[in-house]
Amino acid sequence: MKIAIDAMGGDHAPQSTVEGVMLAAKKHSHVTFQLYGDKVKMAPYLEQLSNVEIVHTEEKIESTDSPVEAVRKKKQASMVLAAKAVKDGEAEACISAGNTGALMSAGLFVVGRMKGIKRPALAPTIPTVDGSGFVLLDAGANADAKPEHLLQFGMMGSAYVSAVKKIERPRVGLLNIGTEHNKGTDLTKDAFALLDASSVINFVGNVEARDLLNGVADVVVTDGFTGNMVLKTIEGTAGNLMKMIKGAMTATPLSKLGALTMRKGIYEIKDMMDYSNYGGACLFGLAGTVVKAHGSSNAHAIATTVTQAIQMVEGNIIGNINSALQQTKEEETTNE
Amino acid sequence: MKIAIDAMGGDHAPQSTVEGVMLAAKKHSHVTFQLYGDKVKMAPYLEQLSNVEIVHTEEKIESTDSPVEAVRKKKQASMVLAAKAVKDGEAEACISAGNTGALMSAGLFVVGRMKGIKRPALAPTIPTVDGSGFVLLDAGANADAKPEHLLQFGMMGSAYVSAVKKIERPRVGLLNIGTEHNKGTDLTKDAFALLDASSVINFVGNVEARDLLNGVADVVVTDGFTGNMVLKTIEGTAGNLMKMIKGAMTATPLSKLGALTMRKGIYEIKDMMDYSNYGGACLFGLAGTVVKAHGSSNAHAIATTVTQAIQMVEGNIIGNINSALQQTKEEETTNE
Repeated sequence: MKIAIDAMGGDHAPQSTVEGVMLAAKKHSHVTFQLYGDKVKMAPYLEQLSNVEIVHTEEKIESTDSPVEAVRKKKQASMVLAAKAVKDGEAEACISAGNTGALMSAGLFVVGRMKGIKRPALAPTIPTVDGSGFVLLDAGANADAKPEHLLQFGMMGSAYVSAVKKIERPRVGLLNIGTEHNKGTDLTKDAFALLDASSVINFVGNVEARDLLNGVADVVVTDGFTGNMVLKTIEGTAGNLMKMIKGAMTATPLSKLGALTMRKGIYEIKDMMDYSNYGGACLFGLAGTVVKAHGSSNAHAIATTVTQAIQMVEGNIIGNINSALQQTKEEETTNE
Repeated sequence: MKIAIDAMGGDHAPQSTVEGVMLAAKKHSHVTFQLYGDKVKMAPYLEQLSNVEIVHTEEKIESTDSPVEAVRKKKQASMVLAAKAVKDGEAEACISAGNTGALMSAGLFVVGRMKGIKRPALAPTIPTVDGSGFVLLDAGANADAKPEHLLQFGMMGSAYVSAVKKIERPRVGLLNIGTEHNKGTDLTKDAFALLDASSVINFVGNVEARDLLNGVADVVVTDGFTGNMVLKTIEGTAGNLMKMIKGAMTATPLSKLGALTMRKGIYEIKDMMDYSNYGGACLFGLAGTVVKAHGSSNAHAIATTVTQAIQMVEGNIIGNINSALQQTKEEETTNE
């Protein structure tokens, strides 16, 4: 298996990406890693490992670049070349911690859409109190969505959770303003009917935003606008609260001493809420495996994301999504 | 001025509602308070105050009642009678801590819609880190919305913030997935254009969910589905985190001692996040002032909500919304 990595994307690139791949390369000796980027800038962090290859390029996509334009114009960018390796069948998966919009564009225009999938989806894993997390999709690949897209999101999220978390029948919930089946917008009402009728997924009904962190479902589907709102609201609320708690702990010399007594518990909370422990956000609905690592990833987070990509390839997610699509098509034909 | 209060709604009714009104009645001696409810059940908490009247009724709406049906069938319910007092011009405002859906129905079917307003909106004040809070609307009165509804939400939220918080030109933000003007769904793009063109409100552009608690706007407008999601996501995330922090603080005898050293800071955070300090959620777009107090309100929260309702009446919110509607109509005529 070969994994292509955009070494130049992310806030701490290329150091974090290269160091993270070094960690992963030692752990996964059966996998070959291709690092795309500037060999001079990568050099200080590289070790001599037989399963790591360098593909030199000096072009790269900046976080401030306009996504679609950057992917079209910067044909030699490290991110674009990594995506092209997947397209050409040279690599089984690609990873980038760079510009999210650009990676979605590269996924769509370079790797290409999976046949039968109407809309790709961005799917991060969101922390839950019990530490297991849930997959949220779509978290913002497209703002608007139709009911059939949400059904496909449910299928793709299920295939992922089955393969990576080894849960046989992942619970799929529909994000809504109430748990009753007739709640919500036209979109959620129609999506509810489709999800409920499908035997391909294990639909558990509507789930409320208030209960998300309590682990009410393994996969939560929604349109990209709402998904993005919920993701950013969780990040904003948790980030602000943690900052204020840190303020309370460091307010006085005495409170600093007091804080030491609960260090373990506080670290556990920080660890639980740390997105990087849950891997990167997957781009589902493409003809190949594409994973977006957090922009602020350190070496550990990159290594976690690499392991996640390997599990996705080994779990045959692309094949499983295809099977689910096939089964859905057969159900539809039978019902007609 | 007369304020009608549904004494039987809420988790701790009638004790909290009656005790809260007693607190408020002593503070606002120029206001008359009408308590609607069961006089026998209210009796233990009543004091002899010249500005408090009792309107006895034994019927009440339960939290489990179907909202529309309950308002239609339970014509003698304390909530319905309080709303009727506003309709009949007997009271200037009504307050209930009961069934939110039922209060919205009572607002719509008993008090009635304000002429010119297309959709009422539920508008809670959400905590911000600096303690000033912002008004979010619509938080769930209607799931779907059109661009012109969002413009009206902006006008109503502005009128409220001007009157109650004494901010002359409140900043109105549009909740969106990015700050650029061309971001989002068809709804947000069209709403952006309308809000931007209006001289009635001080539109500051798109605001992101991540920045809400940092006080990026005084009024944030969105459709009721998204508003409800954001509200409940904040509640769920903050609630879970506070629970986990409490766990860390009480994990060992030593950590319990340590927690004492930061008690002040933690209380400040709890106080800042406590919705009841920011008053109840307003129901805008009705022909009268209707305020929903938190279901879990204690006497203090009820008294805060009563003060809020008095400020709304004294600030002439209904009149100010009418003026804004008039001004908008004139602008539209001029632009034609």
